[in-house]
Amino acid sequence: MQQSSADSRKPRVVIIGGGFAGIAAAQALAGSGARITILDSNNHHCFQPLLYQVATAALAAPEVAWPIRHIVRRQKDVTVLMLTVEGVDTARKVVKTDKCEIGYDVLVVATGATHSYFGHNWTNLAPGLKSISDATLIRRRLLLAFERAEVSDDPIERERLLTFVIVGGGPTGVELAGAISELARRTLPPEFRRADPRNARIILLEAGRRILAGFPERLSDYARNSLEKNGVEVRTDTSVDQVFEDRIVTGDREIRAGVILWAAGVRASPAAHWLGVESDGTGRIAVGGDLTVPGLPDVYVIGDLALLMDSNGAPVPALAASAKQMGTYAGHAIRLRLDGRSPKKSFRYRDYGTLATIGRNSAIVKLGRLELTGFPGWLFWSVVHIYFLVNLRSRIFVAMSWIATYLTSNRGARIIAR
Amino acid sequence: MQQSSADSRKPRVVIIGGGFAGIAAAQALAGSGARITILDSNNHHCFQPLLYQVATAALAAPEVAWPIRHIVRRQKDVTVLMLTVEGVDTARKVVKTDKCEIGYDVLVVATGATHSYFGHNWTNLAPGLKSISDATLIRRRLLLAFERAEVSDDPIERERLLTFVIVGGGPTGVELAGAISELARRTLPPEFRRADPRNARIILLEAGRRILAGFPERLSDYARNSLEKNGVEVRTDTSVDQVFEDRIVTGDREIRAGVILWAAGVRASPAAHWLGVESDGTGRIAVGGDLTVPGLPDVYVIGDLALLMDSNGAPVPALAASAKQMGTYAGHAIRLRLDGRSPKKSFRYRDYGTLATIGRNSAIVKLGRLELTGFPGWLFWSVVHIYFLVNLRSRIFVAMSWIATYLTSNRGARIIAR
Repeated sequence: MQQSSADSRKPRVVIIGGGFAGIAAAQALAGSGARITILDSNNHHCFQPLLYQVATAALAAPEVAWPIRHIVRRQKDVTVLMLTVEGVDTARKVVKTDKCEIGYDVLVVATGATHSYFGHNWTNLAPGLKSISDATLIRRRLLLAFERAEVSDDPIERERLLTFVIVGGGPTGVELAGAISELARRTLPPEFRRADPRNARIILLEAGRRILAGFPERLSDYARNSLEKNGVEVRTDTSVDQVFEDRIVTGDREIRAGVILWAAGVRASPAAHWLGVESDGTGRIAVGGDLTVPGLPDVYVIGDLALLMDSNGAPVPALAASAKQMGTYAGHAIRLRLDGRSPKKSFRYRDYGTLATIGRNSAIVKLGRLELTGFPGWLFWSVVHIYFLVNLRSRIFVAMSWIATYLTSNRGARIIAR
Repeated sequence: MQQSSADSRKPRVVIIGGGFAGIAAAQALAGSGARITILDSNNHHCFQPLLYQVATAALAAPEVAWPIRHIVRRQKDVTVLMLTVEGVDTARKVVKTDKCEIGYDVLVVATGATHSYFGHNWTNLAPGLKSISDATLIRRRLLLAFERAEVSDDPIERERLLTFVIVGGGPTGVELAGAISELARRTLPPEFRRADPRNARIILLEAGRRILAGFPERLSDYARNSLEKNGVEVRTDTSVDQVFEDRIVTGDREIRAGVILWAAGVRASPAAHWLGVESDGTGRIAVGGDLTVPGLPDVYVIGDLALLMDSNGAPVPALAASAKQMGTYAGHAIRLRLDGRSPKKSFRYRDYGTLATIGRNSAIVKLGRLELTGFPGWLFWSVVHIYFLVNLRSRIFVAMSWIATYLTSNRGARIIAR
């Protein structure tokens, strides 16, 4: 890669991945004197907590995704390159991409996680929700199911088309189930003449004993009741044995379905393989308290990819908040290192609370000992998510989309793209 | 298709195509006592005059496209079916689709037009702009060219990647050229570190003597000067001989280009073939003053597909305004016909003016003898386009997007989707 001679004396920090962790690391390095390069195979950073709203046609994709280079445009020391990373040579300190090699002095790996199908090849049968293209694919399938039901003359086929199965009762599964129910029960009925969307069945399958297992039992019970009140069938203790194009098999039951969505398993990106280090069963890389990889002091691993035990012995959860905190810590640690110093304290995750939305006027929030449900929870959830959007424009547009959807029940992004 | 016995006595009007003409026809038939069915292979109606803003990342696709069934949701006599029409049997009075046959008493064909490459197979090398998927494909290519230039170390390859050729100097070609120039000169420069977007070349090729030939010479000269001031190279009397993936050949000149766009030729959809009638060189079907096809009194052909001479002997232009007027006329004519009457007057196109935008603060408007250019023209263009959007929500969102783009020069929809 080209460089001026003045630049060539500056230390090179390469960040792989422009998600919450990678962006936070770049921002924490502003003005550090390092030359920073962000590599990502996408041109955009995506606000994953609202992806389910793109998948269910409430928001347009550009409302929750922005070019990475736009976010860091004021940091003249940051170069963003849209490249697909294929490996890392830690001996030569070089990142290998589809187009070229990029040398680093310090490497930050923040490539996140994707879906896991536990060894099955169900990606196309039951798509998961991690990227903008996942969201538009899911939107397409959901909207097409209703369109096909309207065209069909066969009541059995219509019933199948209007059956939506979501596998996995974590926050994403719950949010998808709640939003699909709103789409079917509130948004679409006035527009269909032959196949009534209100007849849609929305089924949420969870292998464990309860949904939203990361929350206290009371909140998870509230969420289940709230979903059921909105017409979602919640089936716990139900694991999936087979997925086909038109049906899903759980134990001795078979559910014929128009759309099957996957929100069950998560698997880290293949970075452990690039770095030649060990990973846990889900691909995560164990890091030390300074977020570097044992044996590779120049390599930081942060975000969903990092496996780190908290002070209370539990792993730091894979959340936007923890990813940002790790990014900021790593950025500061690298600044100190460039000055020949090292951070005084190990990384410590601060839990500012967890929240999940279920649907209109319904969400659960846990902030330390405070627990919110119903409308107060939903309002809190909305305000927090608007606040964390990347800029004023997005805040205004998302807030206005929500107000319009709240008032009219219409969803503004109901395009079936080819 | 299923129907109740009360419904089965109502006359069946089938409208093929949910564009400006088809929607206007359905709306003019509201409460007529007919059962109306709209068939379209897309689920959405698209506001084509603003498609170029989706292609150049100023607007998100859902801001200019809405489900057809949403637009006509209050007309309980309208059923919308997402089906691809494959033919018409005018003897049996049946429309053949990919899934079923649909019988009609009166048929309205409003399937519009697509690009014409004059017999060449350049669709993929030089995409045109007629649909939402065209717009997102073009957006992807434009944004990728800048990303690839930023990654490349080769100055010759960079120069090629940042050369944008638009073929055709009609309104769409002019609008694309102007908007790409804004993208390159105003939006992107602060965000690139290696390949300066200001070095981009934007070349508009026109085979005729002047661009915007439908406008008076003075306005077309103004447009050319305005484009050139914004850094667009305008080459008239230049026709295209060859298109390749990385270059375009005009006469003895070859232009190496990163993106080639096609805004030159238009060809009507294959409806003449379905109906077994004659068409002109561009596929249009000649209609009578009542907009029916000679010899097929039950078949109306409207919009860009219809070939009709105006009172002054010129063909009615293929515009959104004329499509809407034809749709309204056909709808009213069918209402009268259902009452056993026929319209007193032939269709007459009312020219309320034509307008084209060139870029920031620059547009041309012709309203009868009034001609506007520059900022007044641009303001008039903006207000008119906001006014014609389908609903309040879209008006607010598009207006706000424009205000944000005007103030910040950022463009809010810069996602490269896969």
